Amino acid sequence: MRISEKALNMKYSAVRKLVPLASEAESKGVKVYRLNIGQPNIETPELFFEGLRNIPDHVIRYADSRGIKELLDQVIEVYSRDGHILKKEDIIVTQGGSEALTMAMLAICNPDDEVLVPEPFYSNYKSFIDIAGAKIVPIATDITNDFALPKKEEIQKLISPRTKAILYSNPCNPTGKVYTKEEVELMADLAVENDLFIVADEPYREFIYDDNDKHYSLLDIEKARENTIIIDSVSKHYSACGARVGFLISRNEEFMKYIMKFCQARLAAPTVEQYAVANLMKAPKEYFKEIKEIYKRRRDIIVNSLNKIEGVTCSAPKGAIYAFAKLPVDSSEEFCKWLLTDFRYDNSTVMLAPGEGFYETAGLGKQEVRFSFCVGEEDIEKAMKVLEEALKVYKK
Amino acid sequence: MRISEKALNMKYSAVRKLVPLASEAESKGVKVYRLNIGQPNIETPELFFEGLRNIPDHVIRYADSRGIKELLDQVIEVYSRDGHILKKEDIIVTQGGSEALTMAMLAICNPDDEVLVPEPFYSNYKSFIDIAGAKIVPIATDITNDFALPKKEEIQKLISPRTKAILYSNPCNPTGKVYTKEEVELMADLAVENDLFIVADEPYREFIYDDNDKHYSLLDIEKARENTIIIDSVSKHYSACGARVGFLISRNEEFMKYIMKFCQARLAAPTVEQYAVANLMKAPKEYFKEIKEIYKRRRDIIVNSLNKIEGVTCSAPKGAIYAFAKLPVDSSEEFCKWLLTDFRYDNSTVMLAPGEGFYETAGLGKQEVRFSFCVGEEDIEKAMKVLEEALKVYKK
Repeated sequence: MRISEKALNMKYSAVRKLVPLASEAESKGVKVYRLNIGQPNIETPELFFEGLRNIPDHVIRYADSRGIKELLDQVIEVYSRDGHILKKEDIIVTQGGSEALTMAMLAICNPDDEVLVPEPFYSNYKSFIDIAGAKIVPIATDITNDFALPKKEEIQKLISPRTKAILYSNPCNPTGKVYTKEEVELMADLAVENDLFIVADEPYREFIYDDNDKHYSLLDIEKARENTIIIDSVSKHYSACGARVGFLISRNEEFMKYIMKFCQARLAAPTVEQYAVANLMKAPKEYFKEIKEIYKRRRDIIVNSLNKIEGVTCSAPKGAIYAFAKLPVDSSEEFCKWLLTDFRYDNSTVMLAPGEGFYETAGLGKQEVRFSFCVGEEDIEKAMKVLEEALKVYKK
Repeated sequence: MRISEKALNMKYSAVRKLVPLASEAESKGVKVYRLNIGQPNIETPELFFEGLRNIPDHVIRYADSRGIKELLDQVIEVYSRDGHILKKEDIIVTQGGSEALTMAMLAICNPDDEVLVPEPFYSNYKSFIDIAGAKIVPIATDITNDFALPKKEEIQKLISPRTKAILYSNPCNPTGKVYTKEEVELMADLAVENDLFIVADEPYREFIYDDNDKHYSLLDIEKARENTIIIDSVSKHYSACGARVGFLISRNEEFMKYIMKFCQARLAAPTVEQYAVANLMKAPKEYFKEIKEIYKRRRDIIVNSLNKIEGVTCSAPKGAIYAFAKLPVDSSEEFCKWLLTDFRYDNSTVMLAPGEGFYETAGLGKQEVRFSFCVGEEDIEKAMKVLEEALKVYKK
C-alpha cells in the first residue's frame, strides 16, 4: 500500500516535533522550560467549569452543524462590544481555529492554487493549505524591519491567476507583529482589486500590549465585506486551548453556504465544550485587561533579556504571546535539539520552536526561534538565563 | 472570488438537508417523528458526567495529538475484552469517526484515486473521499438479496491501478447488514492480494441483534495486519454523539506515522470530552446488552410494520440502528419532502432519510429510505402509522 503524496509531503508540526526529546530529558529529572508552545499556564476561568456543570441535557446529542444557539448568541454579543454587528448566519462554530482554517482553504482553493501569506507565519498554515492541495506564496518580511509589510506594488507582483486568497494572523504568530491600519487596508485593497478572499486569523486580538497600538479589523472595511473571512478561537483569549472551540466568521452568504457542506460532513463541533464555552464567553471585557497585564510583563522580561544577550536580535512583539528572535547560531533547529539532548544548566534546559518551520522559503529562518509567553515570570527568567549560558557554550 | 470545485461539487448531508423543512413544520406545532438521523434518545451513561466533574486540571490544555493517556488506556482495555491486543501507538483519538475517516482518506488517496465501497453506504463517506480528491467505486449490493456482497471475481473486476482502499461499515449504516465471516475474509483477501488498505468503520459493532450473527473483525485476520484500519466512535455505543470522540486504529506503523502529521496539524481532540469519555468507557460490556435489547425491540416494530404495508420491501437489519426499505413511490426524496411540507396525520408527520444520498450510482436509491431506531417504541409505532397513512394518500 502506498501513502498519499499529500501525507508524504506534509511537515510534522514545527512546534511539536521536538516533544519526544523534551519528554526524554524530563524523564531523566531535568527541568525543561517549555517556551516552544502557545499553551498558556493561566487557569481557564471558572465560568467554563460552571458551564460544564450546567449542561442542560442528559443525552449528549449532536449539536447543530453550525453550532449551538447559546454559543452563537454569545459570539454575536462579544463582537457587538467592538461595534461589529453579526447575525447567526455569519458564524460557524468549528473545532478550533484549525478546523475553521482547513474548511476555508478547502472551500477556496483548487489544487495548485496559491495563497499569499506574510512570512514568517504560523506553521500549521502550511498543513491546512496542503490539505487543500494548494500552496503558499510568501510575502517576505524581515526581523530587522519589525516584520513590516512590503509596498503594495511588491505584493501585487506576487499575485497570479492562481492566487485565491491572502491569509494573515493579527497579532501575528510567530512574530508578535500588530498590523497597522495602513497595512490592513493595503491587504484589503489588494483583495478587492484582485478578487481574492482575505482571511484574518485573530485568536490573539485582545492581546495588544501598548496603548499606541490597536487591532484593526477587516470587519470595518465595508468594501471588502464579501472578501472577508475572520478566524477566531477561544484557545488563547480564555486560556482554553483544549476546548477546541473556534469560529469561522464571514458575511459572504455564498461562501458560508458552501462551508456548511464541510460542517455537515463532520456533523458538529463537540456539544459539551460548546455549552462550557458559551458560558465562558460571558467573561467581561475587563477579564482580558488582567490577562494582558500578565503577558505584557512576561514579554518585557523576554525582550529585555534577549536584548542583553550578545549577538541576539529580537523584534519588538506588540501583541500575541510570542517573541521571534535571531540567535548567533548556524542552525536553530540543531541548537534547539542540542538544548534538549546535551545542555543542562542547574539541571534544567529550555525548549524553543525552531524558526525554519515558520517559513516557506527554503533557507530562511535557520537562525531564528520562537519564544512563547506561556510560563510564569520566574520560569521565564530562569529560562532566559539557561539560554544565555547555553549560547556561551554552544558558540565554542 | 470563486468557490473551489471541491466545495461546489460536494453534497449536502443526505440526512440533514431536510432539517429546515422539519423545523418549519415543528414551528407550526406539528409533531415530527424524526427517524432520519442516528441520534439516539437514550441517556448518556452517568459515567460520562462523572468524568466531566473530575477533570484533573484547572487549565484546559491541549491534549497530546494522539489523545490523552487515560483514554488510550481505556481503548486498549475495551479491545482486550474481545481478545484484540493493541498498544498505544496503534490508536489515535479523533474528533469523531468523521475525522478518523477524513484523515485516513487524506493519507491514502491521491487526487483521482479510487476507493471501493459496498453500496448503499453512509452518505458522508462521499464527503470524506471528496475532501481527499478521490472517488468512490461502488460495489453493488441489492435490497432483494439482503445486501450480500457479490462474488470475489465481480469485485476484483472493479479494481484498477487507481484503487487504493476498500471501505465498509460493519454493521452497515444504512442497511443494518452484518457482514459474514466469509464476506469479511473475502474483502481482506482482495486487499492483501491487490495491495490495498481496508478500512472497517465499526461504530455499531456492539449492536448485533440475533444470536446467530457475530461481528467479524479484521483485527483477527493476521495476514491483513498491515492493510487494516479500524474506525471506531463512542457516538452510538454510548449514546454520546455530541462528544465527537472517535478512534483510528491500525497496526501499520508507517501509516500511523503519517496520520500523525494530520493530527498535529489540528493540534488535538477536545480535552474535556476525552476525560469524560475515558470514564464513560469504563462501562462494563453488560451495558451494551441492555441497550441492544432496546434497539432490538425498536427494530422489530419497524420491520414488522414495514412488512405489513403493501408495496414496501424491507430487508432484515441484523445490526446497527437503521432499517433500509423500498417504498412504492417514484422519488423518495420528493415523498420525504412532501411528508414534511404537506402531509399531516393526527397533526403529526415523519422525517426519513431519502435513499439516493446513500448511493454513488446515479439513479439508484430513488425509491428507498433509511429509518433510524432512535426514538421510543411508542413514537416508532405512531410514526409507522403515519407512514402507512401517508402512502395511501400519496399513491393517489
